[in-house]
Amino acid sequence: MSELRWDPLKGNWTIITKGRSRRPQDFILQREQVEMTACPFCYGNEEKTPPEIYAYRPNHSRPNQPGWQVRVIPNKFPALRIEGQLDNQAEGLYDRMNGIGAHEVVIENPDHERTMADMSAGEIAEVLKAFRTRMLDLRNDSRFRYIFIFKNHGIEASANVPHSHSQLIAVPLVPPMIATELANCREHFQRKERCLVCDLLRQERSSKERIVRDDGNFLVFTPYASSLPFELMIAPLEHAHDFTLQTDQQLLLLGETLRDTLARLRAVLRDPPYSFILHSAPPMHLRWGRPDYWASLPSDYHWHIELAPKLTRVAGFEWGSGFHINPTPPEEAAAFLRDADPSVRY
Amino acid sequence: MSELRWDPLKGNWTIITKGRSRRPQDFILQREQVEMTACPFCYGNEEKTPPEIYAYRPNHSRPNQPGWQVRVIPNKFPALRIEGQLDNQAEGLYDRMNGIGAHEVVIENPDHERTMADMSAGEIAEVLKAFRTRMLDLRNDSRFRYIFIFKNHGIEASANVPHSHSQLIAVPLVPPMIATELANCREHFQRKERCLVCDLLRQERSSKERIVRDDGNFLVFTPYASSLPFELMIAPLEHAHDFTLQTDQQLLLLGETLRDTLARLRAVLRDPPYSFILHSAPPMHLRWGRPDYWASLPSDYHWHIELAPKLTRVAGFEWGSGFHINPTPPEEAAAFLRDADPSVRY
Repeated sequence: MSELRWDPLKGNWTIITKGRSRRPQDFILQREQVEMTACPFCYGNEEKTPPEIYAYRPNHSRPNQPGWQVRVIPNKFPALRIEGQLDNQAEGLYDRMNGIGAHEVVIENPDHERTMADMSAGEIAEVLKAFRTRMLDLRNDSRFRYIFIFKNHGIEASANVPHSHSQLIAVPLVPPMIATELANCREHFQRKERCLVCDLLRQERSSKERIVRDDGNFLVFTPYASSLPFELMIAPLEHAHDFTLQTDQQLLLLGETLRDTLARLRAVLRDPPYSFILHSAPPMHLRWGRPDYWASLPSDYHWHIELAPKLTRVAGFEWGSGFHINPTPPEEAAAFLRDADPSVRY
Repeated sequence: MSELRWDPLKGNWTIITKGRSRRPQDFILQREQVEMTACPFCYGNEEKTPPEIYAYRPNHSRPNQPGWQVRVIPNKFPALRIEGQLDNQAEGLYDRMNGIGAHEVVIENPDHERTMADMSAGEIAEVLKAFRTRMLDLRNDSRFRYIFIFKNHGIEASANVPHSHSQLIAVPLVPPMIATELANCREHFQRKERCLVCDLLRQERSSKERIVRDDGNFLVFTPYASSLPFELMIAPLEHAHDFTLQTDQQLLLLGETLRDTLARLRAVLRDPPYSFILHSAPPMHLRWGRPDYWASLPSDYHWHIELAPKLTRVAGFEWGSGFHINPTPPEEAAAFLRDADPSVRY
């Protein structure tokens, strides 16, 4: 069983995985290139994964058989496990919680070679609908206070299965980075009665220098204080605190935005490894037993996607200070991506 | 000129370097293996570096000539520059400051092949004295609010010159991670009239399961909520908020602690890349112009070193959530290091 542990000096939680813990020898092995005789995410190998939780099967094929277009399964090696009760206790000055949560894998298409940048807007929209469905379902479990959806592409971004997929992790507390964003948004709203992210989007559209793409629905831009080179933020121009409120039509527009943005990154940086993560407000009904500070009102937050290619190594200074040194000004990164030809492939 | 930029959503500062900004082509180049005909940190190449700021020359040799044992020089490609005035201004909702600071390199010994784990306690103590001298000197510059000292070993930890060295960066604000630690320590002291880190050290010594080394002067242990495998904390058992208060004798004991700890890491993980960073209280006299919240009273903080081998890649989940997943429980990491033979070399 994994544990969540709290450090009173840093004020931070870490997930410590047990059971299949990694020993020195495991780290000495060179690269984690996965040599697989049969990819468990390909058609015909459905029995190599746990039974599916959700699938999009346009031809109404049978569960756990070929014919699906998107397939969601439990992670075979989960960081957190769904069985058990929360058990929050002190250990002297420290705190710990047992590692209750959910860890799922979203297989984005059946083709072993097709990345998200190769998919159509409609195909990506089906992946986004799977995200929406799974988030809504997991919110019925009152032990989970936050649900993360993220994607790693490329071995350097820790995607150790090459077949295109994303992941979902439900955790029993609001993660620090989300808590900070929620607090900053709420403070801004309480002072000004305006959404902080709406204000930022207006400023970005007016200055234009950091905009990569603006189709009138979603804005893609390089954040002013980007901590990584070519970091991107994708946000809906219409205010919405919660990703699950997006309609099918909005998800189709987001699919096109993602497709085009990933194709630009591939053209400019020659298929770089990258990660993206969805930031969405925790739902209001999760405020049980606590002051409603972390529960979200519609005014308090603005969902968005944060995306960054993995181009640099995090060095001692960044790790130990929380300060990042970014060698590519976001205005220059935006210009390269804006001018890119998204049809160039590597 | 570099810039420091503030993000109102994340509440975080980033250093954006300009002037030698990195373009897409720079990231496509494979590894940054430095092929040097002559290492600028070796004897006889002193003219290839900027003039030295400090040197330990046991035989009283002349500046910028061979004969030194430790040599401190300005970084030839600094992240922050020492010339100019602070210029803090808003840019709409954002904030920026020009990149005033200092960036120095501490060459730890003249031998191209000798790492810190190969040095004697006395030789490491001379490096630690150089840290102390440079920190005290830079504190005379009232533009700097914090001084970081850190070391990267190995190309994966971003040390792009192999010759053993550490770095110093002085920044014009208190970095977020230090601000958090200072706030947590102060809050603990105000409630309990005890130092938080002293309390943690007592608990670690009593439970013993995470201790790697305890010589009665310095404690080396794996933190309870370690975010990385084999992460270590090294702290003096005698309370001290400020590293510069350490005596020569204490630095010699710390030199022995570092030597032995690094040799254990080398034996267990076969010369892994690693980083360490010194956390010390900002001095009281830096409280000019601000509430004294970040200025440090002796009771408020406890200096220490944080050290981590670089064994895993930071994936999308960690980057976007602030949550780390650590696959090696710190109790197991401590047992491996405790049982290691520090004389084994790789």
